[in-house]
Amino acid sequence: MRHPPSRKDTPLAEEPLRPTNPLVSPLLNDLYQLNMAYAYWRAGRQDDPAVFDLFFRRCPFQGEFALFAGLEEALRLLSSFRFDDEQIAYLRTILPHADPAFFDWAATMDCSKVRVSAMREGTMVFPREPLLRVEGPLAITQLLETPLLNLVNYATLVATNAARFRLAAGPDKTLLEFGLRRAQGPDGGVSASRYCYMAGWDATSNTLAGQLFDIPVAGTMAHSFISSFGGFEDLKDHTITGPDGTVHDFVELVLRCREELEFTATSDGELAAFVAFAQAFPNGFLALVDTYNTLNSGIPNFIVLAVVLTRLGFKPLGLRLDSGDLAYLSSRAREMLSDARPRTSVDLSRLKIAASNDINEDTLLALNQQSHEIDLYGIGTHLVTCQKQPALGGVYKLAEVRSEPCTKLSEIAERRALPGRKEVYRLILSSGLPFVDLMTRVEDDPPEAGKPVVCRDLFNELHRTEVTPAQVIRLHHLVWDGGLTDYGLPSLQETRAHVFRELRSMRSDHLRSLNPTPYKVSVSEQLYDFAHSLWLQQTPIARVR
Amino acid sequence: MRHPPSRKDTPLAEEPLRPTNPLVSPLLNDLYQLNMAYAYWRAGRQDDPAVFDLFFRRCPFQGEFALFAGLEEALRLLSSFRFDDEQIAYLRTILPHADPAFFDWAATMDCSKVRVSAMREGTMVFPREPLLRVEGPLAITQLLETPLLNLVNYATLVATNAARFRLAAGPDKTLLEFGLRRAQGPDGGVSASRYCYMAGWDATSNTLAGQLFDIPVAGTMAHSFISSFGGFEDLKDHTITGPDGTVHDFVELVLRCREELEFTATSDGELAAFVAFAQAFPNGFLALVDTYNTLNSGIPNFIVLAVVLTRLGFKPLGLRLDSGDLAYLSSRAREMLSDARPRTSVDLSRLKIAASNDINEDTLLALNQQSHEIDLYGIGTHLVTCQKQPALGGVYKLAEVRSEPCTKLSEIAERRALPGRKEVYRLILSSGLPFVDLMTRVEDDPPEAGKPVVCRDLFNELHRTEVTPAQVIRLHHLVWDGGLTDYGLPSLQETRAHVFRELRSMRSDHLRSLNPTPYKVSVSEQLYDFAHSLWLQQTPIARVR
Repeated sequence: MRHPPSRKDTPLAEEPLRPTNPLVSPLLNDLYQLNMAYAYWRAGRQDDPAVFDLFFRRCPFQGEFALFAGLEEALRLLSSFRFDDEQIAYLRTILPHADPAFFDWAATMDCSKVRVSAMREGTMVFPREPLLRVEGPLAITQLLETPLLNLVNYATLVATNAARFRLAAGPDKTLLEFGLRRAQGPDGGVSASRYCYMAGWDATSNTLAGQLFDIPVAGTMAHSFISSFGGFEDLKDHTITGPDGTVHDFVELVLRCREELEFTATSDGELAAFVAFAQAFPNGFLALVDTYNTLNSGIPNFIVLAVVLTRLGFKPLGLRLDSGDLAYLSSRAREMLSDARPRTSVDLSRLKIAASNDINEDTLLALNQQSHEIDLYGIGTHLVTCQKQPALGGVYKLAEVRSEPCTKLSEIAERRALPGRKEVYRLILSSGLPFVDLMTRVEDDPPEAGKPVVCRDLFNELHRTEVTPAQVIRLHHLVWDGGLTDYGLPSLQETRAHVFRELRSMRSDHLRSLNPTPYKVSVSEQLYDFAHSLWLQQTPIARVR
Repeated sequence: MRHPPSRKDTPLAEEPLRPTNPLVSPLLNDLYQLNMAYAYWRAGRQDDPAVFDLFFRRCPFQGEFALFAGLEEALRLLSSFRFDDEQIAYLRTILPHADPAFFDWAATMDCSKVRVSAMREGTMVFPREPLLRVEGPLAITQLLETPLLNLVNYATLVATNAARFRLAAGPDKTLLEFGLRRAQGPDGGVSASRYCYMAGWDATSNTLAGQLFDIPVAGTMAHSFISSFGGFEDLKDHTITGPDGTVHDFVELVLRCREELEFTATSDGELAAFVAFAQAFPNGFLALVDTYNTLNSGIPNFIVLAVVLTRLGFKPLGLRLDSGDLAYLSSRAREMLSDARPRTSVDLSRLKIAASNDINEDTLLALNQQSHEIDLYGIGTHLVTCQKQPALGGVYKLAEVRSEPCTKLSEIAERRALPGRKEVYRLILSSGLPFVDLMTRVEDDPPEAGKPVVCRDLFNELHRTEVTPAQVIRLHHLVWDGGLTDYGLPSLQETRAHVFRELRSMRSDHLRSLNPTPYKVSVSEQLYDFAHSLWLQQTPIARVR
């Protein structure tokens, strides 16, 4: 299952990189792309040089930023973008009236003549910026639309969501992604684990994602484990072997400790389950405490185990709350952990308190308003399915064909597409903060540090800003030129580090959850004039009679 | 890629059925399941007979029904549920302190001792009903939790969503699923296509789903196709060959027809694109008409093509609206199509009008309130990501271990789990309508047609209904008994037919979108008493000092 380590400059002749999900192929596509490819081929236009931009029009979650993700999988797609024989046979059945010679073309098409300029994965991106600029033969670049959108849309969405949860939780909390069971299919789960980790989470519960991407995995126990133990009669073995090799009667130590602490109302079944779990995992013991009654049974039973394990020389980790008022219960749990010391001489006050149970970004923000003692969050459903907005509206628009600019018109200005090949530059002020992303035409002079440049608002002709950047970052990299380029495939760890830098680099008001300030995306004078004159030229005057 | 046709009684010794997505394996799991499996094994309890129920607590989308889906993939999972060597090696790295003998157990575990009773896929299901009752060795049935939930939750969610959209659109509309580009990962797209078709949709745009599941595929063209044509100079070939083999100057015919119809303001680029598309697909021509201007350019250009194609002996299909007010534009389009007849003697009035553009269940209901002329909907984002509620909260709870009933307690009554092995019966009245689903203990006498039976509300002790059913349907089937049973694997078509029957069988007030009537799910007297006495017994009296 595990992929071979990424390598630079893999020529197409060598074993191609494969998409993580074997379902990804040129056939993971919309029929209309194949229809269009055939119509282009039929018209002799399949090799016309074309340029497509992949971008989104609005940041997700009513926010003002997104984190670009999905590039590595996009490159794996390009690298293996060929129909196999069985797929060609299937194409013949769904295009029964097509000229048979088309299938000869389809059987040999690949991405050896495609060039892709892209943002670095993990870069903070904004509306209308081309995340990928795809150049190459018209029919092939058209066929790339659906699989590229599929691979980028959800990846970018969930990475952005994960970054928002991280910002809401704060940098010192441990964040564990637990979404697999509620994700939209197996791949939804595996992708979510990967992109949440990329966006600054600490670990996942998903062991397949752990294996595939070398992500730390985490997890403890479920309620079923607790309820499967009726009492101590379910424990065949009562012993535990200490770190020094001494064998102890664990159950006796536990029962004696419970008496010592005067916990008389705790569930025997739960305590027996804790004993069994501690026998299996004496170090790093973390217990779920809400199966019967959090305050009267779960936390007291956990304290008993934590005291006994500590006395034996092990290091318990903490407890997990999975229901109720998490702020209140975590505070009470912290008090109860601290209260154990005077009676037992064991300091449990710094053990971890973990919380789960349908947590979302708003819950995290609300918890911060209250006082709570949670160290670690386990979050699933809302994180991975992006409940606030489960789809990113990324689109893929033709910008140029045979060197002629193209556009998608719309009555709604926001929906018009920018024609031509474009570059994107991030202009950094002397404060070190990014101020604006400037889109230019590829042929324009790039902005330079120390030189004033006029940045125009695409839809407000009066809004012009002259910016003198202290630094200019060109955001596009040539990532594919018939094969992987020198850019290579950055590792997940490198991309994760890039995300941390990106998040630190931005003014916090762009990132906040409530009423964030839009980050400015402008166009150069030349691009402004170019786009508006093309739009005017292509929009017929409405005639009213 | 294509699976071998389903076969009954495949013994485990033969080639096992494989999950559609090769990522699905026992490692597609939460780490805590592996932790628990190890702790059970460590305690010598791995083979304790256990019973788990998979169910949900609330119907999605604020509705009052769900369509159960995901069973075939669940059975494919069971059939291939084994760790491979590489996975075992990975397990050793994430459970570094585990007794090495555990991995010998893990390397040999499979589902040959597991039994599963399940609802038929495509059955209408309701809160608390076990969709699957999984029985077998404790550690293995525990390991099944996460992958089963992953395979059933989204499948059931999206099938239910698709059925709701179908109910909203009405039975006579053609519904095409277009969601791949916005789906949550490749598998989200492929699963959505399959389960939407299962739930009564007509086709998908997704060619991989078409290939894998033999689903009809559909699609036309994108805006990029239109905008890639600047004018007639982009057409190398001006001819078309008629059905009788005669070669015509297609462009001349088209231009002459445009003059004849006095369409003077239409885009040449768009018209040239339509010509190219019609050359490739002269029959079934369907054109996207909103690239430049729907009423002034797109529809007139389509009419020109439709008239010329019809005169040549081809059958054009229709037009697609992708922006603007769909009710108004579809009505205007119908008028314009009808108006062509007096001038051209060609009847276009019955051509299909397709609509797309961010349609959801509410849009469909709103369109029905207005007058519109849409025959066919293409729907993506809202359908496949289930925007109204992107996750089903299905859970998997231990109901029995070593013949002792288990439960999950909660302060919230709705969250308590029903103990013991349960059957579910659908009681049909003499009217032919289902009235209540009755859950009983497996050992209770089953309800019988013509015999009164008392149905109790689980959380309202005063609410008792004596029902004399005209017919009783046992909803659970033994679908797995160490291997596939006689139940076999129904085909997608059979399941789709079952869905149609199910939807027709229910009172429409349970199915409607606004304020639907809850369908009753009751428990037998015995199950009521059994559950309540266990809950009482296991809930400690809260002590206040």
